[in-house]
Amino acid sequence: MNSFGQLFRVTVFGESHGPAIGAVIDGCPAGFELNSEAIQEMLDRRRPGGNALGTARNEADQIEILSGLSNGMTIGSPIAFIIRNRDTRSQDYNSIKEVFRPSHADFTYEAKYGLREQSGGGRSSARLTAPLVAAGAIAKQLLASKNIHCYAYISAIGNTRWETPIEWTTDEKTALAHLANTNWQSAKIPCPNESAQQSMQNCIEEIAQNGDTIGGEISFYACGMPAGLGAPLANKLSAQLAHAMSSINAVHGFEFGSGFAGTSMKGSAHNDVFTAIDETQARTASNYSGGLQGGISNGMPIYGKVAFKPISSIRTPQQMLNKDNQLIEKTIEGRHDACPVPRAVPIVEAHLALTLLDAYLQNRLSKW
Amino acid sequence: MNSFGQLFRVTVFGESHGPAIGAVIDGCPAGFELNSEAIQEMLDRRRPGGNALGTARNEADQIEILSGLSNGMTIGSPIAFIIRNRDTRSQDYNSIKEVFRPSHADFTYEAKYGLREQSGGGRSSARLTAPLVAAGAIAKQLLASKNIHCYAYISAIGNTRWETPIEWTTDEKTALAHLANTNWQSAKIPCPNESAQQSMQNCIEEIAQNGDTIGGEISFYACGMPAGLGAPLANKLSAQLAHAMSSINAVHGFEFGSGFAGTSMKGSAHNDVFTAIDETQARTASNYSGGLQGGISNGMPIYGKVAFKPISSIRTPQQMLNKDNQLIEKTIEGRHDACPVPRAVPIVEAHLALTLLDAYLQNRLSKW
Amino acid sequence: MNSFGQLFRVTVFGESHGPAIGAVIDGCPAGFELNSEAIQEMLDRRRPGGNALGTARNEADQIEILSGLSNGMTIGSPIAFIIRNRDTRSQDYNSIKEVFRPSHADFTYEAKYGLREQSGGGRSSARLTAPLVAAGAIAKQLLASKNIHCYAYISAIGNTRWETPIEWTTDEKTALAHLANTNWQSAKIPCPNESAQQSMQNCIEEIAQNGDTIGGEISFYACGMPAGLGAPLANKLSAQLAHAMSSINAVHGFEFGSGFAGTSMKGSAHNDVFTAIDETQARTASNYSGGLQGGISNGMPIYGKVAFKPISSIRTPQQMLNKDNQLIEKTIEGRHDACPVPRAVPIVEAHLALTLLDAYLQNRLSKW
Amino acid sequence: MNSFGQLFRVTVFGESHGPAIGAVIDGCPAGFELNSEAIQEMLDRRRPGGNALGTARNEADQIEILSGLSNGMTIGSPIAFIIRNRDTRSQDYNSIKEVFRPSHADFTYEAKYGLREQSGGGRSSARLTAPLVAAGAIAKQLLASKNIHCYAYISAIGNTRWETPIEWTTDEKTALAHLANTNWQSAKIPCPNESAQQSMQNCIEEIAQNGDTIGGEISFYACGMPAGLGAPLANKLSAQLAHAMSSINAVHGFEFGSGFAGTSMKGSAHNDVFTAIDETQARTASNYSGGLQGGISNGMPIYGKVAFKPISSIRTPQQMLNKDNQLIEKTIEGRHDACPVPRAVPIVEAHLALTLLDAYLQNRLSKW
Repeated sequence: MNSFGQLFRVTVFGESHGPAIGAVIDGCPAGFELNSEAIQEMLDRRRPGGNALGTARNEADQIEILSGLSNGMTIGSPIAFIIRNRDTRSQDYNSIKEVFRPSHADFTYEAKYGLREQSGGGRSSARLTAPLVAAGAIAKQLLASKNIHCYAYISAIGNTRWETPIEWTTDEKTALAHLANTNWQSAKIPCPNESAQQSMQNCIEEIAQNGDTIGGEISFYACGMPAGLGAPLANKLSAQLAHAMSSINAVHGFEFGSGFAGTSMKGSAHNDVFTAIDETQARTASNYSGGLQGGISNGMPIYGKVAFKPISSIRTPQQMLNKDNQLIEKTIEGRHDACPVPRAVPIVEAHLALTLLDAYLQNRLSKW
Repeated sequence: MNSFGQLFRVTVFGESHGPAIGAVIDGCPAGFELNSEAIQEMLDRRRPGGNALGTARNEADQIEILSGLSNGMTIGSPIAFIIRNRDTRSQDYNSIKEVFRPSHADFTYEAKYGLREQSGGGRSSARLTAPLVAAGAIAKQLLASKNIHCYAYISAIGNTRWETPIEWTTDEKTALAHLANTNWQSAKIPCPNESAQQSMQNCIEEIAQNGDTIGGEISFYACGMPAGLGAPLANKLSAQLAHAMSSINAVHGFEFGSGFAGTSMKGSAHNDVFTAIDETQARTASNYSGGLQGGISNGMPIYGKVAFKPISSIRTPQQMLNKDNQLIEKTIEGRHDACPVPRAVPIVEAHLALTLLDAYLQNRLSKW
Repeated sequence: MNSFGQLFRVTVFGESHGPAIGAVIDGCPAGFELNSEAIQEMLDRRRPGGNALGTARNEADQIEILSGLSNGMTIGSPIAFIIRNRDTRSQDYNSIKEVFRPSHADFTYEAKYGLREQSGGGRSSARLTAPLVAAGAIAKQLLASKNIHCYAYISAIGNTRWETPIEWTTDEKTALAHLANTNWQSAKIPCPNESAQQSMQNCIEEIAQNGDTIGGEISFYACGMPAGLGAPLANKLSAQLAHAMSSINAVHGFEFGSGFAGTSMKGSAHNDVFTAIDETQARTASNYSGGLQGGISNGMPIYGKVAFKPISSIRTPQQMLNKDNQLIEKTIEGRHDACPVPRAVPIVEAHLALTLLDAYLQNRLSKW
Repeated sequence: MNSFGQLFRVTVFGESHGPAIGAVIDGCPAGFELNSEAIQEMLDRRRPGGNALGTARNEADQIEILSGLSNGMTIGSPIAFIIRNRDTRSQDYNSIKEVFRPSHADFTYEAKYGLREQSGGGRSSARLTAPLVAAGAIAKQLLASKNIHCYAYISAIGNTRWETPIEWTTDEKTALAHLANTNWQSAKIPCPNESAQQSMQNCIEEIAQNGDTIGGEISFYACGMPAGLGAPLANKLSAQLAHAMSSINAVHGFEFGSGFAGTSMKGSAHNDVFTAIDETQARTASNYSGGLQGGISNGMPIYGKVAFKPISSIRTPQQMLNKDNQLIEKTIEGRHDACPVPRAVPIVEAHLALTLLDAYLQNRLSKW
């Protein structure tokens, strides 16, 4: 129940204010030489910074790998790793222990388990995405060794938008030239377009100054996928992606290819016509399918979007119910971002990589 | 790999032009008295009709239950049922055996399995949703016995839209008064609003006359759910819904609650403030959360939308690749709808019910 | 819960006196040409005969394959098949509806599900092994195409025994020469030794004349397995075999290699010394390991034994509790074998093949 | 693939000579107050001691719980824990790096993963049973709160035997009076009979003096189980037990109830006649069924035996193949027990508890 994936299975454990968080990856094949530094680098990308855009919580998030590797080589046994929780200022949360914050998981968690987890959001905290990102960093490396590349970037903060260029959907060389060779990933706003970065940052800062929060969108993009990954009925690759992306905190929507906009298109315009590129290989001229036809990859870039609602922890006073079911007014203390999407970029990227790798392994079983 | 659900697991088998299709439901608890007629009724709602809106294929789709019941009572063993394929005019498909239809699963299926399934779409056909609908009809009955009610209806055909009334999202009594007591479900366009039905039907007929197809949206709505169903990290109820809905043919998007529109909202506006309705119970004044907070139900109505791309089988000539990787022009024969959503309404409803029932059973395991 | 296997997953449905029994195989790779007659032949081997050794129930047990094949070729989608129940003389069971037969599943089934399944043993009946045997026949064919061969034979009826020759455990050629080329499988007592067949048959007939029943043992033997199948910790191949064999009705014990006799051996005698057979390949001189070391196959023959208790349905009067918890004396009517093992031979063989095939597929995932 | 259990799922990670070993338990219900000291106590029972009977390796095996508890209370999220490896004298293993030890997992592990894990047996080491024992200690506590009690004890070392008294199989009060109230568990030879302890110890010491090893048997015994746990076809409780027990290193056999001895019994003698103990409850007069009828518990004590082959690491010179496939003579260095069973007692107990708890949770899903 706390696992992602079927064949490359990641079980995430930990709570935001316990001793440590971590994950166990079961199903990583033996014989792959892992770059541990790349894992730490990807983790660092989701780490809360010290600037206006991120929470003030500052943790090294140093990963310790406990098993599954021998001299950096995967050996076929589970890869377990932990990240110690160090800066757990739970006093920030004492004041909200007795209330149910609006649109937060306090109420629902207590309804499910009959108790509230310890302060700080516990199991529902975005902190729990760190192990997932580390697992995703491993998946990315495995895929990259097969020339499959996974990216995520911000496409909207509130109404400030930057759309994936339409040519990227059919031409991965142009996309990779930009995505792989520029420094956008380390920007405060990981969006491949510099002027959009600035507009988006302005938007967040304005919202933050008012103690409010704002939603946004993250786009995902993968290329190099062989045709034939996924399944025709249950466990379509699109459904696996929808599941993975919708598992991220604050996500309220998912689409791929033409997405919601495709609902008002005609078939004659939406159909992706095949073209031969040589005697045996084919591509499509357009890619409204988002690289997935009938739930199975067709070899074209896979792309889509994930919708994030605004974070519920605003800094202005709100009406809340307490445990005696009485309405009181209260302001949420603690460290909270003004927008969920900047730190969620590596999380979307991680889920993309984990899902594609799982589909890749599943496909080893499709033919006798 | 061909199963839906974890504890109430539905494995769908069959191809559109083989002897029969069907499913096995594993995990149905013993001691529930099933109404078999209601299963057949729901199946009939997805059945291709003889009118301008549906395909000309006319099958009785008579369900035969083979196991799992004794005098109508569930006995704890798997419920297996089959639906015979009778009207399999595979000659319609002979002409397309040697080509890859654009935006269809021909190409991807062959890439995955190394062979093309028999004509007629085989495993990728929408016909395979029939067993799923029958399983959903069973799930609906189990849920209804706990006062949980599941609905789906069309909210858009192309640009012709009818939105779920905002008051339904917080007030299930008003919603049920309309949804449970009117005849909209048996209409050609299953939309709760009669004038919208007419506009949508006009839209489809116009498209069909031109041999083209159009996309659309289906809304889902469930009420009566107890608070506490779902999970805080992996297997969020929202992720399970996203997976289920994205498993439906032609689906390109999923959202719940505020959905994509929520990405441009501020937290102060988006937060759903709790209100006490008596000394122990609470509800929220708004419901942008779509009944799900932190992946767990909060007792409010669960609602959202599913986006369908236009069907790829248009009746006008198209460029296609043949097996020799040469481009030819061809017109697709056979029976195809002009819009996927009218017949998909009971499918969305079925996936909604199956997902909620699975979460309901999962919750029996949450407390010691 | 009603499935066998992880990657080649067989879900068995049906009850002994319902309309049909059957199974769905999910995970059969595409592109294998199946011999349907061989399936029926293996089914016929477990069919109740008309002689003194089997029950009087006579059913054709004709398999109908509903999906997953196209012109005899597997296409990657689930293989579903049914076997109609025809000769359901449920009146035989009316008299025992109200009592709990000793050492039968009546009492425990009712405790589990809160109701008794329909007469005739329902879900617990040995009849439910027929779909499993059919699935096993498919698994056997897939394995045979990789030169992996699976056998089962009787090694004891009561105290009448015939042991697997020790040379077979290290020399599959000798074993196959006998197992594959003689007619022992179609004998009333499927034991490779003719004189043992006769002694065993005498034993059963004597028991049957007294209205009593007797237990026995079945040996399994597989050869051609590549080294490296299984897993070192959980899901050892030995554990998967133990699970499969212990799922058979009336089984009370399982052992492989030296088995229980190995508990009193010294390590110096038990160790299987490797010998080189050429520059790159090795075998062991003895095979107390039963082909499995550390839960993983070593390329040597896999062998072991399954212990069956006597069937509980004896024909003499017994003390039984009725539903009012009162002790009454009663004689069980209906058709019952005097010994479970003759008809269980193809069942053991089926479970052996299913387990090895599952391990074979699992191994496609072990290396990057 | 590295998990035990379906609803109370234990994923074990780590290798014997890496930084740490541990496990994640997914599916532990919320709201149970855990006694951490009892976990450590059970771990200590499998710890290598300093006496003639155990290996010389001396590790504190201190468990650190990282998640899933809040003030000792389970909170519904995964319980992760680690045990650091401290005393890893891998130089002992350097000398065997290049050879395949007879009847050890060296050869098969390399065949599976294409590489040999680091020295010391790596993943195949008995050290990996420590996390399983800790998980079992948790399962035992949960079961004990429902009055279900789990025991394991040695019943044979070589040919020195002590059998479970026949009256224990029908009378749990007598059994518990002895098992729960005497100090046999902390003995060097955890067998409930003191004189048998002494004979068994003599047997081991004699074997050890000759540098040889010997096999043995462990009995398991559980009482307090409600009737109705298990399943009638796949996943019989007996099959789940067979799987769990056969997952233990060196296990070559499993039986329950009458076991292999039952194969030569007649049905008239083997049948367990029910007797009413009051107006609504029943028991059986004998218990050849081992508490399991048709794969489902009948409320009587569950008991059986597990067969262990002798440990393959003997201290005398043996013929081994090296990596060049050449035969050399070599003596295995390092710390190894002369008999696997003394330290395996808590492991059998742990698997018993984990299996019964899983069945207990599964049964929450059997009735509507």
